[in-house]
Amino acid sequence: MSSQPRALDICKIDGVRVFELPLKKDSRGSLTFAQYDQTLPFLPQRYFIVFDVGEGQTRGGHAHREVEQLLICVKGSCRVLLDDGDTRDEVLLDRPELALYIPPRVWATQEEFSRDAVLAVMASGLYDPAEYLKDYVEFVAVARGQRQSNRLEQE
Amino acid sequence: MSSQPRALDICKIDGVRVFELPLKKDSRGSLTFAQYDQTLPFLPQRYFIVFDVGEGQTRGGHAHREVEQLLICVKGSCRVLLDDGDTRDEVLLDRPELALYIPPRVWATQEEFSRDAVLAVMASGLYDPAEYLKDYVEFVAVARGQRQSNRLEQE
Repeated sequence: MSSQPRALDICKIDGVRVFELPLKKDSRGSLTFAQYDQTLPFLPQRYFIVFDVGEGQTRGGHAHREVEQLLICVKGSCRVLLDDGDTRDEVLLDRPELALYIPPRVWATQEEFSRDAVLAVMASGLYDPAEYLKDYVEFVAVARGQRQSNRLEQE
Repeated sequence: MSSQPRALDICKIDGVRVFELPLKKDSRGSLTFAQYDQTLPFLPQRYFIVFDVGEGQTRGGHAHREVEQLLICVKGSCRVLLDDGDTRDEVLLDRPELALYIPPRVWATQEEFSRDAVLAVMASGLYDPAEYLKDYVEFVAVARGQRQSNRLEQE
């Protein structure tokens, strides 16, 4: 595997990356993979699988203070809305070989799940309710504050 | 989450475990999860997704020298044949909330994929062809040798 994984330039939010993973097709079926620390940018401490999402339902609607996530829609499709407090964009996940990396402090919502959609999410940290930002106003303050702090450090 | 994850007693091969993961259903859909180091017994360094497997096709058919794996059939179903060189058994994966842990030196083959099956596999190590045992006779020698060595250490 190349040491420079291919990231698609389809999201304008800093730090968000969409990887186009290798896809191996043969008579036995199809296989796609990712590995640390290239297209799997962290060692997952947790995974969760979302499925049987009803028509018109949305999931997510929060950010994480420190946890990184990798989202793979392994069956069907869904749309991910992303917001870093200043910029909004969206990514359609409609193939198992797409992996969406979401850094900390990016508000994410998933919607438009196809009837057969299965969304796999890997997370860099264990489940910790205190680690979630569920209030949007608080999220914006935290996200902007962190960017401001980063800028000052770089000066 | 309980510190004693529930493992189903449905496989007679030493070290193989089948976890029944929590399943949260509500109006927004279903979610199941695992986390380190309970029902996710290792930190995955790699994942791969297998899909579009043709009718009658089998996958796998090898063991790993050191790598551990966790198999989750996140959509549809497939059957996993397991063999430690002395004992054979099989596990049907037909729900996203089942996670099959396969320790090193267990020969595994997947078959009977349903048409819609999607199999997610997490692996404890990076891809390394030298780490695969693809010759069954060599595998049996390695697996039995390791068990003999373990027994001598315990005496």
